[in-house]
Amino acid sequence: MKVLIVGGVAGGASTAARLRRNDENAEIIMLEKGDYVSFANCGLPYYVGKVIKSKEALLLQTPESFYNRFHIDVRVRSEVFSVNYAKKTVSVRNCETGESYIESYDKLVLSPGAKPIIPKIKGMDLKHVFTLRNIPDAFAIEEFIIHNKTKSCAVIGGGFIGLEMAENLKSSGLEVSVIEAGSHVMPSIDTDMAYDVQNYIRSKGIKLYLNSRAQEITNSSVIFENGIEVAADMIIMSIGITPDTEFLKDSHILLGERGEILVNDYMETSVNDIFALGDAVSIKNIISGQRVLIPLASPANKQGRIVADNLCGKNQKYNGSQGTSIIKLFEMTVASTGEKEESLIRNNIPYKKVFTYSSSHAGYYPDGKMMSLKLLFSPLDGKILAVQIVGYDGVDKRIDVLANAVRFGLTVYDLQEMELAYAPPFSSAKDPVNMLGYVASNVLDGKMKVFYLEDISSLPKEAILIDVRTVEEFENGHINGAVNIPLDSLRSCLNALDKNKVIYLTCQIGLRGYIAQRILDQKGYSSFNLSGGYRLYRAAEINKAGLL
Amino acid sequence: MKVLIVGGVAGGASTAARLRRNDENAEIIMLEKGDYVSFANCGLPYYVGKVIKSKEALLLQTPESFYNRFHIDVRVRSEVFSVNYAKKTVSVRNCETGESYIESYDKLVLSPGAKPIIPKIKGMDLKHVFTLRNIPDAFAIEEFIIHNKTKSCAVIGGGFIGLEMAENLKSSGLEVSVIEAGSHVMPSIDTDMAYDVQNYIRSKGIKLYLNSRAQEITNSSVIFENGIEVAADMIIMSIGITPDTEFLKDSHILLGERGEILVNDYMETSVNDIFALGDAVSIKNIISGQRVLIPLASPANKQGRIVADNLCGKNQKYNGSQGTSIIKLFEMTVASTGEKEESLIRNNIPYKKVFTYSSSHAGYYPDGKMMSLKLLFSPLDGKILAVQIVGYDGVDKRIDVLANAVRFGLTVYDLQEMELAYAPPFSSAKDPVNMLGYVASNVLDGKMKVFYLEDISSLPKEAILIDVRTVEEFENGHINGAVNIPLDSLRSCLNALDKNKVIYLTCQIGLRGYIAQRILDQKGYSSFNLSGGYRLYRAAEINKAGLL
Repeated sequence: MKVLIVGGVAGGASTAARLRRNDENAEIIMLEKGDYVSFANCGLPYYVGKVIKSKEALLLQTPESFYNRFHIDVRVRSEVFSVNYAKKTVSVRNCETGESYIESYDKLVLSPGAKPIIPKIKGMDLKHVFTLRNIPDAFAIEEFIIHNKTKSCAVIGGGFIGLEMAENLKSSGLEVSVIEAGSHVMPSIDTDMAYDVQNYIRSKGIKLYLNSRAQEITNSSVIFENGIEVAADMIIMSIGITPDTEFLKDSHILLGERGEILVNDYMETSVNDIFALGDAVSIKNIISGQRVLIPLASPANKQGRIVADNLCGKNQKYNGSQGTSIIKLFEMTVASTGEKEESLIRNNIPYKKVFTYSSSHAGYYPDGKMMSLKLLFSPLDGKILAVQIVGYDGVDKRIDVLANAVRFGLTVYDLQEMELAYAPPFSSAKDPVNMLGYVASNVLDGKMKVFYLEDISSLPKEAILIDVRTVEEFENGHINGAVNIPLDSLRSCLNALDKNKVIYLTCQIGLRGYIAQRILDQKGYSSFNLSGGYRLYRAAEINKAGLL
Repeated sequence: MKVLIVGGVAGGASTAARLRRNDENAEIIMLEKGDYVSFANCGLPYYVGKVIKSKEALLLQTPESFYNRFHIDVRVRSEVFSVNYAKKTVSVRNCETGESYIESYDKLVLSPGAKPIIPKIKGMDLKHVFTLRNIPDAFAIEEFIIHNKTKSCAVIGGGFIGLEMAENLKSSGLEVSVIEAGSHVMPSIDTDMAYDVQNYIRSKGIKLYLNSRAQEITNSSVIFENGIEVAADMIIMSIGITPDTEFLKDSHILLGERGEILVNDYMETSVNDIFALGDAVSIKNIISGQRVLIPLASPANKQGRIVADNLCGKNQKYNGSQGTSIIKLFEMTVASTGEKEESLIRNNIPYKKVFTYSSSHAGYYPDGKMMSLKLLFSPLDGKILAVQIVGYDGVDKRIDVLANAVRFGLTVYDLQEMELAYAPPFSSAKDPVNMLGYVASNVLDGKMKVFYLEDISSLPKEAILIDVRTVEEFENGHINGAVNIPLDSLRSCLNALDKNKVIYLTCQIGLRGYIAQRILDQKGYSSFNLSGGYRLYRAAEINKAGLL
C-alpha cells in the first residue's frame, strides 16, 4: 500500500506515525508545503513572547527523525497543487527548485490545514502587517520587533491567537491594542462571560476596542470604519482562519461553502480512497449535530489515529467534536466546551442556564482563586449542553471534568454525584462542579426560580427588588432600585412584605438569594433569584465603563 | 417535625443546612459533643504547619451563625450517650455542667464521625503522644511544640493524616520520622505506585521506616518490635480511625463488626426514623459492591443532602463511593480512585493494568512536570476499575477526569475519545488521559503485549531482554541482563534475532518499546513490552536502596 499524506503538522503527522505502527510494510510519503513538519503551532505566540526560548523546542519532529523512527519519506517545501482522482495521482511542486512531478497513491490523506483570513483593507500589504500561523511567521515577527525596536502593536481580532499574541507582546514590553469587530472578545464564550475577561484585559494595560472594524492600515496606525485612529508600529492580523484547500477546487472532492473538505464519520471524502482531517474539514458538533469547522489540535490528533486505522481496513468512527477550548491570559484562564448560549439560540435548541461562583479550593486554605461558571442544560432532562468558566487556578480542571459531562451525555444530577478528589489544597468537599450541579438541579426541579442580568432592565414596575447582602456590602454598591434586607434579618421582616407583589432577590453570587427564596417560598411569597448575583451585574457595569 | 442531629461536622452540618432549606418549619437541634461545629477538619495539619495561620479560618460556622442564618439550635459540648428508639428520645450530657437530660425526636440523624485508633502499646498515655482529629488536638500539638521547643517528631502511621503531618512538621523545621507497619505508605495506592512517593519523602529529609511496628513509646523515643529505637520529642499517632459509635451499643440500631452503623441506600438505619451518615457508616464501594468504611469529607457532604431530602419524604439514593482521594506532599501530589490492584486481587475481580508516564502540559512549554499513572480495567470490556496517579502539577485534574470515568462506567475506549481542553500551558493535544486510553486499548485489543516489573525476576532463561533506548540512556543504567538495541536501529538488526525466542522489550516508559513491538510483531517475532519501562524499575531500585 502506498499512502500519500498531504500536510505534515498535527493531523498529517499523527496519521503517519500511527499508520506505520499499524503497517510496517506500507510506503508512506508525507508532503508538506511549508519548511517544517510536526511543529508546535500552538506554541508560536509563546515563542514570540520568549516564554518558549529556543527555536528547537518548537520542532517536535524533523524529516530526519520521522525517517529514522518510522521510515516515513517526509518531503518539506513540497506543495501538492492538484489531485487527479481518476488516475490516483497528485501533482507536487518542489518549492525550492520550482520543478513539478507526479506522485501516485493507493490511498490519499488530505491534512492541508487552514490559513489566516486576509481582509481586503487598504494597507494589508504593508511590511509591518503580520499573521501568525507557522514558524516562519513567528521568526518574521521576532525579527521585525528586534530590527525596528517596535514599541506598539495593534492586534486585529480578539480570538485565541489574537489574545495570546496580545498577552505575549504586552509581556515583552510593547504597548498593545486589541481591535475586535464583534461585541465581545473570545468567540467561544457568551457576552456575559466575556465581561470579566474584558475587564481583566484592560486591567493589564491593554487597550481594547470592541465593535470596531479596521478600515485602513497606515505605516503608523489602524483607522476604524468609525474614523477612530489607533497608533501602532506593528499589526497582527488574527481575524480567523479558513481551510487551505484551493488546490482541491477542480479535484472532484466535495468541498463546503467555506472551502472545507466534506467527510463522513469515517473521515472519508466524497472520493474513494481519499481521506481528510484536521483544520481543513468540517466535523460534527455533538450538541447541534451540525457539521462545522472546529480547527483545534486535539480533534485533529484524534482524527489522525482514526484515519490511520481506517487506511488499514478498520471502520473507526470519529464521533464529533464539542469545541473544548482553553486560553491562558496572563494569570487568567478562560475555557469552554459545548455550544454557547448564543449558538443554542441560533440553532433553536431549548436550554436553561445558571451561573455560579466558586473558589478553586477550600476557602480556609491559602491562595484559593474564585472562578465564574456558566452552565447550559436541557430543560427536558437536565442534559448538559455547554459550560464556560472564567477564573484563575483550577479552571482547566473543571472544564475537563465538565467537557466529559457534555461528551458522555451526563445531566445536572450527575454533577451532584461526582466524587472528585478533595484535600484542602485542591478543592472543596463540595467541588465547584458539584455546586454547579446543585444549583442547576434546584433550577430544573423548580426549587429555585431565577432571573437574569438581561431581565433587570425590564422588571415589572410593581416588583420588589431585595438585596439580601449585608448592609456594608449593599452600601458598597448595589443594583439601582434595590432595597436592602440582609438575609439573617429576612425572617423578622416578613410581615412587612406584600404577598401580592413578586419579589426579585439578589445577593453577591446567588447563594444567599437562594436561601432567602426558600424562606419566602415556604411562607407563601413568589420570588425570583438573580443568577450570578450582584457580582455578574458589577462585571457588566465595569465593562460598560471601560468601553471606548 | 422535630429533628435531632447527632454530630455537627461535615455530615451533620450539611444535613442541617439542607433540611432548613427544605423545611422552614422543622424544629432542628444539632448536638455536638465537641467544642466546635462545622470546622475544617481537613485543614488541621495545615494549621499545625502554619500554612493556615488563623484559628478562625478553621471555623466554617459557629453555633451563632447557624442560628442566625438557619434557625438551627446548635448545642456544643452536648454528648448524646444513649438512644431510646422505642420512646424516640436520646439522652444528652452537658459536658460543661455534667448534667443530663432527655430530648425527644420525630426523626433522628446520626453523624457521630470516627475517632483515632489508639493501639495498646506501652507509653501511649505519655504527654507527648498526640492524635489529630479535632481543633483542640491541633491546639494541643501547637502548644506542646512551642512550650517544649520540640525538635523531633515520630509519626506513627503513613496514611493521609500521618503524611500530611509529616510534611507540615518537617516544613516547620522539626526532624521527622514516619513509622509504617505496612510494606508501603499510602494505603490508597499499590506498592508499585508507592515507590516514587517513598523516594520523594526520603529526598525531603524525612526518615521512613516501613514494615515497622511500634512496640513502646518512651519519653524520648519509639521502640519497634524488632528492637530498633528512633528518637523523638513528640509522637503523632495516626494509624487510622474507627467509628465513634459506642453510645449506640444498646440502642437496637444494627452495627457492623467494626462498630460502623449499617445503613441502606437511603441512609436509613435498621430502626425506623433514624438515619445515619458520614465516617460512622459503611457505604457501598461502587467497584466491589461491598459495604466498606470510606471516611472522607466529600461522600459525607453528599450523604448530608440526601438525608435532608429523605427526612422530607423524598427517596434519594446514595449510590456509593469509589474512595476518590488526594494528598499533597510538599510539591508532590498522590491521588487515586476506584479499587487498587491489591484490593481487586483480594476481591477476586479480574483486571488488566497499564502504566504510563506523561507531562502535565506540552513539552515545549516551560515547567511541565511528569506524572506517573496506573490504570486498572476490566479484561472483558475495558471498563475502568481504578486509577492511581503520582506526580506534581496537573495530577488533581487527571484524577478528577478519571474519577468520573470510574463513576459513570466508562471504558478505555472512552478515554481515547475525551475532548479535553488543550493549550500549551495546560495540557498536550493528546492529554495524559487520552494517552492512558491509547495504551490501555492497545493492550485490551492485543496490539500491545505487556509484562510487568514483578515478572522480571522470573523471565524464562532463554528469553531475550532488549532495551531499545539510546546507547547513552542504556549506559546510564539498565535492567540486569538487558542488551541494547536502540529503537531506530532495530529494523537493521532484525536478521540477527532468533524468531524462536520470545523477546522482552524495555525502554524508558514503555512508548518506544511499543513501537519496537509493532515492528517485531509484523515481522513474525513474539515479544512483550515492559509496562512502565525502566523508569518504574528504577523507582523500585531506588526505593530498595533507601529501605532501612
